[in-house]
Amino acid sequence: MSTKTLSLKEDYEKLLSSYDTWLFDCDGVLWHGDRLIEGALEVLSYLRSQNRIIDKSIIFVTNNATKSRKSYKGKFDKLGVQAHVDEIFGSAYASAVYLSSVVKLPKDKKVYVIGEKGIEEELEEEGFQHLGGTDPEDNTLAPFKIENFKLDPTVGAVLCGLDTSINYTKYCKAYQYLTRNEGCLFVVTNEDSTYPAGPGILPGGGSILAPLVFSLRRNATAIGKPNQTMLDCIHAKHTFDPARTIMVGDRLETDIEFGKKGGLSTLLVLTGITASSDLDNVKPAQTPDFVTQSLGDLRILANI
Amino acid sequence: MSTKTLSLKEDYEKLLSSYDTWLFDCDGVLWHGDRLIEGALEVLSYLRSQNRIIDKSIIFVTNNATKSRKSYKGKFDKLGVQAHVDEIFGSAYASAVYLSSVVKLPKDKKVYVIGEKGIEEELEEEGFQHLGGTDPEDNTLAPFKIENFKLDPTVGAVLCGLDTSINYTKYCKAYQYLTRNEGCLFVVTNEDSTYPAGPGILPGGGSILAPLVFSLRRNATAIGKPNQTMLDCIHAKHTFDPARTIMVGDRLETDIEFGKKGGLSTLLVLTGITASSDLDNVKPAQTPDFVTQSLGDLRILANI
Repeated sequence: MSTKTLSLKEDYEKLLSSYDTWLFDCDGVLWHGDRLIEGALEVLSYLRSQNRIIDKSIIFVTNNATKSRKSYKGKFDKLGVQAHVDEIFGSAYASAVYLSSVVKLPKDKKVYVIGEKGIEEELEEEGFQHLGGTDPEDNTLAPFKIENFKLDPTVGAVLCGLDTSINYTKYCKAYQYLTRNEGCLFVVTNEDSTYPAGPGILPGGGSILAPLVFSLRRNATAIGKPNQTMLDCIHAKHTFDPARTIMVGDRLETDIEFGKKGGLSTLLVLTGITASSDLDNVKPAQTPDFVTQSLGDLRILANI
Repeated sequence: MSTKTLSLKEDYEKLLSSYDTWLFDCDGVLWHGDRLIEGALEVLSYLRSQNRIIDKSIIFVTNNATKSRKSYKGKFDKLGVQAHVDEIFGSAYASAVYLSSVVKLPKDKKVYVIGEKGIEEELEEEGFQHLGGTDPEDNTLAPFKIENFKLDPTVGAVLCGLDTSINYTKYCKAYQYLTRNEGCLFVVTNEDSTYPAGPGILPGGGSILAPLVFSLRRNATAIGKPNQTMLDCIHAKHTFDPARTIMVGDRLETDIEFGKKGGLSTLLVLTGITASSDLDNVKPAQTPDFVTQSLGDLRILANI
């Protein structure tokens, strides 16, 4: 199967009429860091305006794990992008729902967090106590003294996500729980190797996880795109027909694979990680149905 | 090929008479953290006493990358183990020699270090300037701001080793050098997944490296055991006959594989990472020639 490059107004009109549910990745699609992608705002507004006539719905699906949905909504507000908390699905939220509803971790078990405030907030929403994360005791570059470490036997899961305060103490503690607490679950919000950060690219959640996978010789259960746990999470809250749903994203190995695995159609935009030349050797499982330079290209629909 | 379990006095006598050069791993063989393994001191003294009669030599080969040879000698001194700096081969030293003598990195190129003081000292001995490492600017949990980062175009290598002050700033900077400075070399002192630390096990140098390998999708050149760069380094300083040389270690995938790759004989001790049951499914390339519970077992030779 090959990818269709969209260019004519009729291409975009056909796209609009074929799909009722529009799933959007955010970073690299709607914005870069704190800068909106040109035209993205107008296109989202246009889709919402169509909603009044032909029931279109918009869902934001992000592997961002540093923010809870509530806090991520603040980013939409700041950039002037209309969004409701119920339309936002982040990997921190999906991970907390996974622990609570899928594997049903008992609520008297604690979660050791490598990650930021967003993970903690979503765990709290699901009724879990947590250790690590933003606790000042674990945000230190002081040497980790294993002889002073007290293992908490009630820790039943280690949940790892992007953590820009990552340090050796967190790795050491997570390693202890995963090797010494029997049955301790090992979950990662997402396995993104990198993410676009303003003028450059930085290591992502999957990279933060890597020392644990390497030292434990054990893989974590991954929640975010391309894994279907994220789609299950959306399904639990929204009704949609996969045949009339399209995933719009900038990454072949997360967004596009996620959409295809879930039986959705897929649109690749080139405003993020992926370059046009990356499509030359793309795997079938990551081949988008459609490609366009930028989400802003859809402005042609509204004659903007 | 199977492993011979040593038990009788004549087994040990045969061992002593078969090998003139004795390479010892340190942690898990001579000591655990700051505690000597029972009998290790007496056995080393006995081997040295034999030297007067039958030319035995002792070499310490460690993947420890946090200490320079000089500083590592301090550990020997503190524990009362006789050693000369020339007998000590650490992976920080071997890495600096690799950059200087094997790939001949020009001396006007700088090395970005993820690692501790030992790596910096050995780089300085070889005449290299370095960034990162123990520099307070890079030992911070403050957010990394890529927009404030000034890429140094003279950085020609990233050298990574165990760094118990690891943090996101170091990963981000190393990532920038390896993606933006053309031809930048990527070297790791050793790929140990873990190391024994007193009463427990902690993530090792290979685990610290893992986020870079994952985010870059590129492997580093590894210097320490089981890689032969370490043996080349020993060869450059000492004359020995591989057929009459034995490597004594506690790890199948580093010490034993190192010895076998280099055509040496190998003795596994069970005072470190490896348990007797691990030999049930051992790979041919990691099957030791001999196994004994502890280096202290060799006391039988001296009737101690």
